[in-house]
Amino acid sequence: MNDKIIILGMENYLKIISKEEEIPLRTLKDLFLKGEMVIFKNLRGKPLGIGKNLNVKVNANLGTSPEICDIEWERRKLKEAIKAGTDTIMDLSTEGDLDRIRKMFLEESNVPVGTVPIYQAVVETVRKEGALFKMKAKKIFEVIERHAKDGVDFVTVHCGVNKKLLEEMRNNSRIMDMVSRGGAFHITWMVATGKENPLFENYDDLLAIAKEYNLVLSLGDGFRPGALEDANDKLQMEELLVVGELVEKAREEGVQVIVEGPGHVPLNEIEANVLLEKKICKGAPYYVLGPLVTDIALGYDHISAAIGGAIAGKAGADFLCYVTPGEHLRLPTPEDVREGVIAARIAAHAADIARGKKSAKEWDRKLSVFRKNRDWEKEIQSSLFPERAREIWEESKPLHPGVCTMCGEYCSLKLVEEWLKKK
Amino acid sequence: MNDKIIILGMENYLKIISKEEEIPLRTLKDLFLKGEMVIFKNLRGKPLGIGKNLNVKVNANLGTSPEICDIEWERRKLKEAIKAGTDTIMDLSTEGDLDRIRKMFLEESNVPVGTVPIYQAVVETVRKEGALFKMKAKKIFEVIERHAKDGVDFVTVHCGVNKKLLEEMRNNSRIMDMVSRGGAFHITWMVATGKENPLFENYDDLLAIAKEYNLVLSLGDGFRPGALEDANDKLQMEELLVVGELVEKAREEGVQVIVEGPGHVPLNEIEANVLLEKKICKGAPYYVLGPLVTDIALGYDHISAAIGGAIAGKAGADFLCYVTPGEHLRLPTPEDVREGVIAARIAAHAADIARGKKSAKEWDRKLSVFRKNRDWEKEIQSSLFPERAREIWEESKPLHPGVCTMCGEYCSLKLVEEWLKKK
Repeated sequence: MNDKIIILGMENYLKIISKEEEIPLRTLKDLFLKGEMVIFKNLRGKPLGIGKNLNVKVNANLGTSPEICDIEWERRKLKEAIKAGTDTIMDLSTEGDLDRIRKMFLEESNVPVGTVPIYQAVVETVRKEGALFKMKAKKIFEVIERHAKDGVDFVTVHCGVNKKLLEEMRNNSRIMDMVSRGGAFHITWMVATGKENPLFENYDDLLAIAKEYNLVLSLGDGFRPGALEDANDKLQMEELLVVGELVEKAREEGVQVIVEGPGHVPLNEIEANVLLEKKICKGAPYYVLGPLVTDIALGYDHISAAIGGAIAGKAGADFLCYVTPGEHLRLPTPEDVREGVIAARIAAHAADIARGKKSAKEWDRKLSVFRKNRDWEKEIQSSLFPERAREIWEESKPLHPGVCTMCGEYCSLKLVEEWLKKK
Repeated sequence: MNDKIIILGMENYLKIISKEEEIPLRTLKDLFLKGEMVIFKNLRGKPLGIGKNLNVKVNANLGTSPEICDIEWERRKLKEAIKAGTDTIMDLSTEGDLDRIRKMFLEESNVPVGTVPIYQAVVETVRKEGALFKMKAKKIFEVIERHAKDGVDFVTVHCGVNKKLLEEMRNNSRIMDMVSRGGAFHITWMVATGKENPLFENYDDLLAIAKEYNLVLSLGDGFRPGALEDANDKLQMEELLVVGELVEKAREEGVQVIVEGPGHVPLNEIEANVLLEKKICKGAPYYVLGPLVTDIALGYDHISAAIGGAIAGKAGADFLCYVTPGEHLRLPTPEDVREGVIAARIAAHAADIARGKKSAKEWDRKLSVFRKNRDWEKEIQSSLFPERAREIWEESKPLHPGVCTMCGEYCSLKLVEEWLKKK
């Protein structure tokens, strides 16, 4: 990466992130130049760093669907996501006035905003031309540039879904061939037209847009596994190898890039998957969806994802896309969004502690001292999501002061304090 | 362990468990004789195996407290726990007619029941004599025998909390000296009377009762860490060393024994903790509380525990005590119980898959095939807790058949099926 070009104007962002993450500026600059960390510039708030040695970040997917399209509902979801402490949001809308919805998210979000431009390219084509396959290749680039101009910080682009992999897919024996929506759009277009994926074929054009607007590319994993049994299979690995090459090309052009990952992965295969991404993609920040450690937790996939996310984070994943309790069942409600963000934040925080982040450990220590002193108010206030903790506490206030309804007067902390005179 | 004595009458149980767990009878018998798996005889239902190579099991703690004592509420919690699929329950009651409450749990539970007899010994002493420290040593053994006679399957006994460790505790620099309620009862009694813990001093008497009733001893960890910073410290390790010796003595007497573990443990220290228990306690089944991977997830500790439990299970822990969303805040409600059991079951199942259990993998595969075929009804029915999955589904029924409200007509599975003619 060309130091001079890319550092120009980034110095300020690096300083802010250096303070935020408690990482020396020199170390951070080094990580940035190597491409092991990226910066979402976020012109509407604070810049955000994602990558090696940094705190693990959390993303919340929002946006309309053909089934439920209500901009006010999306606004409420955005508020819940931000209140619950998400680090970024993505607008995945596929219905309604997509430009207007995106602008709403950009205006009202103080955290970085990402999008998946292929969605809008497809939706507008279907509306105008009646069918997805009538989409012109240049349409995709036009929409990406439109998003970049609006100030979007990062875009998911399924550049690795190429013709070679399409042929592999026809003959594979996966349970679920493809669960990526963006990936499926590209595949159907490629099948119908017989052409190569424009984002793969004309990757240089994409890099030119990204460079002009300092847009971070998030290289999507169209072949991410949608079932445990499909994890780390040939299709997924072949796409990762393609993506690894695209990462290097992006760096040559001074374009910031992160890599997307699964999906459904057994507990004992997560570490290997993360290590592989870091190896093949030369340390590019890894953005994982979950991973879900079981396929059966319908209605509770946020918990399945929290397990996988924590393990991935410890192994080196840098950015966790939340999964909500509504996953596999519905477009998330505001409550789903809140629960999804909180579960992902628990995973990210647990990983931060395992990664040795001082400030993360200090948070736990501080709360535990309040807990030891049975200072319920301060304990609640310093917890991850005080609103819910307070609700539970208020619903079951103890008759006796200084204890909770679990043990009452038989509180172990109280007994030890009284009998050993330790406080 | 003396083969003849212990196998007598256990042959039948081993056969049932062998089928249930898909483990050859010879292998199972071997594990049982080595003490690497135990059997809860459960005279009111099916016997349950816990230990190496078996599926990871889940326990739900129930019971009254001095603050909330309502036997009907406890009955409701029992029903929720069983409906949510718990493998065992424990009655931790400390208020009301304790004999009656225990009998209710025993009568109405079809899963094995455990207790912590020191609670009743203390409560009855306080009621009769006015103070905990007036408890007679023999009182503890009398209550244990009472529970055993009633048909309790396993009891937590804090045998490792001895005078030597009490002295260590006075001088340690932990954040939280002791968070175990049973441990705190023993400690306060020892401080007040100057005597040794009767369960440590007269361990042989305990073994005699356990042997007579084929009662499984669960060696409690009085010094389990209550904060991440206290994990794997000197106090915890010293107690583990004491417990390791007690395990060997129990085996010499043909008494079945499991070992209890933490508590609050950083993500990156869980595996070491499990390996250590297996080493020091010569492969005794490990029964962990959580572990919680952060102290700050107040109101969401079931998620924190699911992360830790899954990792512990993969590393070799055999039995997960649930943690509910009410942990650290209140006696759990029926809803807390349900959510706690489900979160622990997700962790146990994810660990089972990682441990290579075929039936666990098969469950995920089956559901994923229904998902691929977009057979929503069968997918929901075969999920972990269909009731909640159905609720979410019903709340957001799609306008178009064969998709959900997340992607609607842009469903990736549908697109790929249509365009690649793959089904």
